[in-house]
Amino acid sequence: MPPRIVEIRQNVLKQNDLLARELRRRYEDAGVFVVNLVSGPGSGKTALLEATLTTLARDHAVAALTGDLATDNDARRLARAGVPVRQISTGTVCHLDAKMVGDALADWDLRALDFLFVENVGNLVCPASYDLGEQLRVVLLAVTEGEDKPLKYPTIFHSADLAVITKSDLADAVDFDRAAAHANMRSVAPEIEVLETSARTRDGLDRWLDRLTQGARG
Amino acid sequence: MPPRIVEIRQNVLKQNDLLARELRRRYEDAGVFVVNLVSGPGSGKTALLEATLTTLARDHAVAALTGDLATDNDARRLARAGVPVRQISTGTVCHLDAKMVGDALADWDLRALDFLFVENVGNLVCPASYDLGEQLRVVLLAVTEGEDKPLKYPTIFHSADLAVITKSDLADAVDFDRAAAHANMRSVAPEIEVLETSARTRDGLDRWLDRLTQGARG
Repeated sequence: MPPRIVEIRQNVLKQNDLLARELRRRYEDAGVFVVNLVSGPGSGKTALLEATLTTLARDHAVAALTGDLATDNDARRLARAGVPVRQISTGTVCHLDAKMVGDALADWDLRALDFLFVENVGNLVCPASYDLGEQLRVVLLAVTEGEDKPLKYPTIFHSADLAVITKSDLADAVDFDRAAAHANMRSVAPEIEVLETSARTRDGLDRWLDRLTQGARG
Repeated sequence: MPPRIVEIRQNVLKQNDLLARELRRRYEDAGVFVVNLVSGPGSGKTALLEATLTTLARDHAVAALTGDLATDNDARRLARAGVPVRQISTGTVCHLDAKMVGDALADWDLRALDFLFVENVGNLVCPASYDLGEQLRVVLLAVTEGEDKPLKYPTIFHSADLAVITKSDLADAVDFDRAAAHANMRSVAPEIEVLETSARTRDGLDRWLDRLTQGARG
């Protein structure tokens, strides 16, 4: 990129970090645990979130924000869980940023919530650089995407706290190499936690939900 | 985005279009058919390209450029087909642009080639806006990604000439709704051609290769 664009991009990121810091303070003051879900398109963010919202909503106050370029399909899918859901349409922008999230939350009373899930735009590149003030960043990798993705998109794996391997019910059908996937994740993100789930069979969902409730407890 | 960034981005795109026009003229003068493959991460661009290069190389002079943020894994995979392959490392940039392609091709004698394949960075957003001078833009959609992706990422489907549904051997395992996928593609890109392939079983590869050789004949 030309130097002028790099410079402007750095300013945008700096501004984002300031807004993200404000959001983080707002979340902490309100006592809400905020999770940012990032992944490539079709890795199963919405499916995991549907299962998560439905189950958590039995004992907790939960809500979701979902980012998408063009449709509100995901917001409508998530709303079926019976929890408050808001859509952020990004147009041609390949990520959510702290301002979009702050605007979407402007009139929400976050103190009423235990969990807020933010479903980012499906993209393994752009969302990596945008802090949304979340307490937990989760990157999803579907077994159908290939074990090499952490090496090819290192920044987003490096920026995440937790990786969830999704669609584990298809692991055998695609000869998923679990050891290679774990090794590749650890090579770019040595500290990352790794869980494995299938939203379809519900395998691994209990551990994922436990991890979330532990996180919320601080 | 702030107005200043929008303006600079428009200038970048304008500059890209001028370079793409030069590349297109160069390709036409050289008589090489250039195909730009775009898709999300893990949709099977490299697997389709491996099968394509291996088969086409029997009767044609073929080569490939492959874009990746950080690794040369794909270039090494493709080189196993025994054809010339060059890697373009984009760092944190989520697409190839015409300058990167022009630089990578600077010392190549394109007249010696029948086909040049350009494998873009795995991303369903960024590559849509960057003309690389190609004669054919192909968007891949794996059956494992879900039928809704054309609606969620309309620009890239709208910008493509041809859509290839990949990993068709997994269609039953994921309850792929073929009719919905076709309807969604046609709703955002009414003129788009659609093929279906499996690089693993080789189903549909003959039609794909026929389409390429027809394209190359003009």
